[in-house]
Amino acid sequence: MSRPSDHDLLALARAEAERGRDEGGIPIGAALIAADGTVLAVGHNRRVQQGSAIRHGETDCLENAGRLPASVYAGATMVTTLSPCDMCTGAILLYGIPRVVVGENTTFYGGEDLLRERGVELVVLDDPACLALMTDFVASNPSLWNEDIGVED
Amino acid sequence: MSRPSDHDLLALARAEAERGRDEGGIPIGAALIAADGTVLAVGHNRRVQQGSAIRHGETDCLENAGRLPASVYAGATMVTTLSPCDMCTGAILLYGIPRVVVGENTTFYGGEDLLRERGVELVVLDDPACLALMTDFVASNPSLWNEDIGVED
Repeated sequence: MSRPSDHDLLALARAEAERGRDEGGIPIGAALIAADGTVLAVGHNRRVQQGSAIRHGETDCLENAGRLPASVYAGATMVTTLSPCDMCTGAILLYGIPRVVVGENTTFYGGEDLLRERGVELVVLDDPACLALMTDFVASNPSLWNEDIGVED
Repeated sequence: MSRPSDHDLLALARAEAERGRDEGGIPIGAALIAADGTVLAVGHNRRVQQGSAIRHGETDCLENAGRLPASVYAGATMVTTLSPCDMCTGAILLYGIPRVVVGENTTFYGGEDLLRERGVELVVLDDPACLALMTDFVASNPSLWNEDIGVED
């Protein structure tokens, strides 16, 4: 079997985002993929579902992956439907994850510059389905979205 | 009643670090303090206790504080026994917390430079009790400590 493409991996994260949306939450999802293509974990934003201030797509995914050796993170790819915020950027840097695949960064531009400065390979896929998910959500729930990115409403 | 000093606030975070140590965990604690001095939440690292990859002192504290309006974060102080790692630095930046009090940054130097670049006021207290907590812990548990900061053992 050939290794999954970045678009295949993004489909995993997008399914999580859609799950979050269907739960009434913020539609952002992520997947953590090992060097050999194994899916280590998936996750999605749980601000609404768990009243959480720290479970964004990427951090929920990292939490679901559990405690991993540094060597696993060192070969991993973090796939996320939306540009990572400062917290999620920091989590990626903390664990030395060398590659990040982003669905879209049109509705939100996060830590791209810092990730690149610190040597992380960043791929932005400009995925229309991810963009539609967030565009619809932000239009319908501006206050909730502002809360999630720490912005005064 | 006069407002608590930074040393008073650090005592809250240190008590959390000691609680974590007594639970068999990584001894790092934090407290989130509102503009008027109210303690919004305390927290401590729960890598061992919950098998958590994302509950560091500061993020556990933010999670315990729950969903807060941006205006509350905008007046808050994050107090932590140890220099914040990249993830916790990012969480502080995400929520626009303008002031960080650090117990010590001798055993670990994290996001100080980025916090200052982004306009966060940073106070490092060089607290001997915080330093002793971490020095003892790192000496006794080097692998666990490396895991927590994403370093290959």
